[in-house]
Amino acid sequence: IPEVAERTAVPGVSTGLAVTGLGGDVLFIEASAYEGERKLAITGQLGDVMKESAQIALTYVRSHADAIGIDPATLERTIHLHVPAGAVPKDGPSAGVTMVTALTSLALGRNVRADVGMTGEVTLNGRVLPIGGVKQKLMAAQRAGLKTVFIPARNEVDLVDVPEEVLAELDVRPVADVAEILAYALEPAAEASTVEAA
Amino acid sequence: IPEVAERTAVPGVSTGLAVTGLGGDVLFIEASAYEGERKLAITGQLGDVMKESAQIALTYVRSHADAIGIDPATLERTIHLHVPAGAVPKDGPSAGVTMVTALTSLALGRNVRADVGMTGEVTLNGRVLPIGGVKQKLMAAQRAGLKTVFIPARNEVDLVDVPEEVLAELDVRPVADVAEILAYALEPAAEASTVEAA
Amino acid sequence: IPEVAERTAVPGVSTGLAVTGLGGDVLFIEASAYEGERKLAITGQLGDVMKESAQIALTYVRSHADAIGIDPATLERTIHLHVPAGAVPKDGPSAGVTMVTALTSLALGRNVRADVGMTGEVTLNGRVLPIGGVKQKLMAAQRAGLKTVFIPARNEVDLVDVPEEVLAELDVRPVADVAEILAYALEPAAEASTVEAA
Amino acid sequence: IPEVAERTAVPGVSTGLAVTGLGGDVLFIEASAYEGERKLAITGQLGDVMKESAQIALTYVRSHADAIGIDPATLERTIHLHVPAGAVPKDGPSAGVTMVTALTSLALGRNVRADVGMTGEVTLNGRVLPIGGVKQKLMAAQRAGLKTVFIPARNEVDLVDVPEEVLAELDVRPVADVAEILAYALEPAAEASTVEAA
Amino acid sequence: IPEVAERTAVPGVSTGLAVTGLGGDVLFIEASAYEGERKLAITGQLGDVMKESAQIALTYVRSHADAIGIDPATLERTIHLHVPAGAVPKDGPSAGVTMVTALTSLALGRNVRADVGMTGEVTLNGRVLPIGGVKQKLMAAQRAGLKTVFIPARNEVDLVDVPEEVLAELDVRPVADVAEILAYALEPAAEASTVEAA
Amino acid sequence: IPEVAERTAVPGVSTGLAVTGLGGDVLFIEASAYEGERKLAITGQLGDVMKESAQIALTYVRSHADAIGIDPATLERTIHLHVPAGAVPKDGPSAGVTMVTALTSLALGRNVRADVGMTGEVTLNGRVLPIGGVKQKLMAAQRAGLKTVFIPARNEVDLVDVPEEVLAELDVRPVADVAEILAYALEPAAEASTVEAA
Ligand SMILES: [Ca+2]
Ligand SMILES: [Ca+2]
Ligand SMILES: [Ca+2]
Ligand SMILES: [Ca+2]
Ligand SMILES: [Ca+2]
Ligand SMILES: [Ca+2]
Ligand SMILES: [Ca+2]
Ligand SMILES: [Ca+2]
Ligand SMILES: [Ca+2]
Ligand SMILES: [Ca+2]
Ligand SMILES: [Ca+2]
Ligand SMILES: [Ca+2]
Repeated sequence: IPEVAERTAVPGVSTGLAVTGLGGDVLFIEASAYEGERKLAITGQLGDVMKESAQIALTYVRSHADAIGIDPATLERTIHLHVPAGAVPKDGPSAGVTMVTALTSLALGRNVRADVGMTGEVTLNGRVLPIGGVKQKLMAAQRAGLKTVFIPARNEVDLVDVPEEVLAELDVRPVADVAEILAYALEPAAEASTVEAA
Repeated sequence: IPEVAERTAVPGVSTGLAVTGLGGDVLFIEASAYEGERKLAITGQLGDVMKESAQIALTYVRSHADAIGIDPATLERTIHLHVPAGAVPKDGPSAGVTMVTALTSLALGRNVRADVGMTGEVTLNGRVLPIGGVKQKLMAAQRAGLKTVFIPARNEVDLVDVPEEVLAELDVRPVADVAEILAYALEPAAEASTVEAA
Repeated sequence: IPEVAERTAVPGVSTGLAVTGLGGDVLFIEASAYEGERKLAITGQLGDVMKESAQIALTYVRSHADAIGIDPATLERTIHLHVPAGAVPKDGPSAGVTMVTALTSLALGRNVRADVGMTGEVTLNGRVLPIGGVKQKLMAAQRAGLKTVFIPARNEVDLVDVPEEVLAELDVRPVADVAEILAYALEPAAEASTVEAA
Repeated sequence: IPEVAERTAVPGVSTGLAVTGLGGDVLFIEASAYEGERKLAITGQLGDVMKESAQIALTYVRSHADAIGIDPATLERTIHLHVPAGAVPKDGPSAGVTMVTALTSLALGRNVRADVGMTGEVTLNGRVLPIGGVKQKLMAAQRAGLKTVFIPARNEVDLVDVPEEVLAELDVRPVADVAEILAYALEPAAEASTVEAA
Repeated sequence: IPEVAERTAVPGVSTGLAVTGLGGDVLFIEASAYEGERKLAITGQLGDVMKESAQIALTYVRSHADAIGIDPATLERTIHLHVPAGAVPKDGPSAGVTMVTALTSLALGRNVRADVGMTGEVTLNGRVLPIGGVKQKLMAAQRAGLKTVFIPARNEVDLVDVPEEVLAELDVRPVADVAEILAYALEPAAEASTVEAA
Repeated sequence: IPEVAERTAVPGVSTGLAVTGLGGDVLFIEASAYEGERKLAITGQLGDVMKESAQIALTYVRSHADAIGIDPATLERTIHLHVPAGAVPKDGPSAGVTMVTALTSLALGRNVRADVGMTGEVTLNGRVLPIGGVKQKLMAAQRAGLKTVFIPARNEVDLVDVPEEVLAELDVRPVADVAEILAYALEPAAEASTVEAA
């Protein structure tokens, strides 16, 4: 899976799933930080709902820093969250878990596993709420070579619509709390600078 | 009542009641806080009236901190108030008492009882003003398994329209001051991390 | 006069008069304050003219603090001015004197008398300028059980249109300077926590 | 001239002239200040051009404080400039000199003479630029009982259109620099709290 | 040239050239400064492009302060740039060099020569880019009595359209760098308070 | 190549490529900085996508300062990024790599080579994403006398549409990471003040 591996080869990048006019697609969430005023910059032509998702994701990470094991100082900087491609408008709440994962990856300095994708709205307390487009998203995940995909628990019912051959190649994991995603999707600290071979 | 119990299992979450295009529904108000500039972040695609409700609720809690028993320092942080689902537009003043309850729960570190719902506009001084949709809201409360529901005193007249079987399963409490809700709805401090069995 | 007494039972609340689509009505201005950035928060779906009235009222109180006997420190906080009901749009300059009275009541910790209403635009120097709807406003004041109503001096000519029976029950006081309202409408400091029986 | 005398009886208020749908009228500019962030608050439903006039007037006074004899500390506060009536939209650059005079009156603590009116755009350097409506403005000045009126030097040509009887009662003074207005229009410091009998 | 001499008789004012609906005209850029927050206030009903020109001009002057010989402290104040007449909307990039000259004049305390006009877009590095309306602008310069006019080097080709008699009375100087304008247009420091006789 | 050499003769200026209504064109990105609040000012009538590109470019440079060899203090100033001509609206993500190069040139004090052009969207991690208009951009690069042009690796497939004679005169370098551009396009530190003869 060359492209996903390349894009997620540094801490702060996670792989999400989106529905586009042409079916589903993978999308990358990039988080970066630098010394400066404690604020959140958001780019990528995101709509109002998706900008709010970014705020929610950051508040989740900040208020759960202790539980996650994050040194709070890593978040007392200017944080920039970007979703390429820069000219394509994007909206919706379903990248919430992906944003939490990107921010946590950045704060811990641990890469996100290159073969993991995810989709799901997240709440301030980390609850994972259902989203749309499960079929198209899982088909896109399989095309992109992903192996493990997290979906909201309440979307498990949508798996009956997903083609057998897609489900056969994916390990689909329904979750109710974003902490379950973090527990699996981040590489161990020691391997943080190594790209997993798929 | 599995969902409500799960959602309110941490301090800062209270259960409100809303009128939607499909009747009534329960809605959760989530409050969170972290060290940072003293400001209020609001998400959940709230309209102007509901954003003002959030400001009013926070001013009520801040200016009544002593009376409630809140350590003011817990409010000298960035406070984030979110109302899932993130993509659904919401408006109106009737979540005022629910916001006061969520913020107080957060500030005191005491869970809101899992079987309590509420609806009502609130003023800066905690007066509870009447709202619409009492019938639909109480029917939704009963469907969701709630046991006790606070409504504004001036809405007591609307109870004649609520089906007998709904009223039979609910303890409906008309109140004129939000302090009456706080006095009942928050679990005792010692049990804060325990979810009440319903 | 149960409702007015209840609403004005704490410092920071004064009773104004408004013209609505259904005649006149009383309206309550609530002022509150808490430690924080020195700014003015305004809620209640106020239009541009009424938001400016709030700014004017606060500047009047701040720049006349010495003359009124206010400890300036009480105003060096975040001040929140709210006009319920939260979902009803409101506009116009005629609540100026009511806002000055609410802010002064808050700053002095003295209740506004429960049987007093008022209407009038105010300038930065406390001049009381004429407003519209005198007839409807006085009829509403009488219906609400008010006993004393302040109106702008230049509106004295409008009293000829007010029904005899309304004027018989009200003590209508035309004033040119808002200081005349403050001198009468605030309860003595010692009685601040007592609601006047009407 | 009772109204003008009453309105200008405190420092910070100057008398301008405006063209309205009904001919000309006098208008009062009120300036006030209080301890706080150094900023300019503007109220009175002013349009963009008139708001810019207020900024220009304040910059003129700040950058000429030494020449005028103003203690700069008096301007290091929040300054509020208001133009009653609060609900009437107003626009245009012709109140520039009136704003400079109100701000200077405030900063020096010296009243503006009650029988003086003025109209004229002002630049950052105090140049007085021509305005419209000279005829209507002078007629309004005479009706209001003013005795001395400052107009822009370049508007002297418009005096041929003003009725003889109006000019007979007014001392019209064309000026090219706002400093000429300040030199005459402010009462001596010693008399600051006295209203001139007209 | 009485008007231009009068307007440019203080540091901070430079003479530009504009195209209006009625041909060309001279326009004055006024810069002023006072102690306060380091920001740029812009007035004169300027459009977006012209507001950006003001930002560009100020950045040029700030980042070239050493080369120009400006004490940086003179720029660490609130700077106000105004373009009279206050009610006339203006736009376009061609006042860039005039703004640089006004700001430099202010910062050095040296007047701009009363017989010099200029037009040209400026870049962050001081390059002078071509503008439109050369013919009308030069005709306006001659009518206003200017003697020397700076134009962008790339506009030299437009001089063929300018009437012989206009060119005969003007010293037109095409330039590629705004530093060439500054080197000529500012009066020597010693004469700063003297208006040049033309 | 006189114009490009002249424009890039100081640190902070890089040469990009754009598609216009008339084919392709070169465009210059100018970056400048001065002591002041750490913020990014953007001018040149840029659309939303291009303003976000500027933010992304600056975050890239700030968060990779160590890797690039930039003293972070050079970025703790107000940074102004301008794209002449000032009145021409511009948009799109394809100037990302050019902005990174201009900011890096400024921060290192090293000129960008006068014969180098570039086009490509950039991500927070420096990935170079594909853009449109490769044919028109390369034709413009050749017309402007450039010798080396960087394009996104994923645009290599578009070279088949570019005329043979254009490719013959250009050294076209497809890249996947903006660091490859920085490694070549900046002149050595020692020659920073020298314009390369082409
Ligand atoms: Ca959406
Ligand atoms: Ca599977
Ligand atoms: Ca509503
Ligand atoms: Ca019951
Ligand atoms: Ca109104
Ligand atoms: Ca009476
Ligand atoms: Ca106007
Ligand atoms: Ca006369
Ligand atoms: Ca233009
Ligand atoms: Ca000549
Ligand atoms: Ca675009
Ligand atoms: Ca080649």
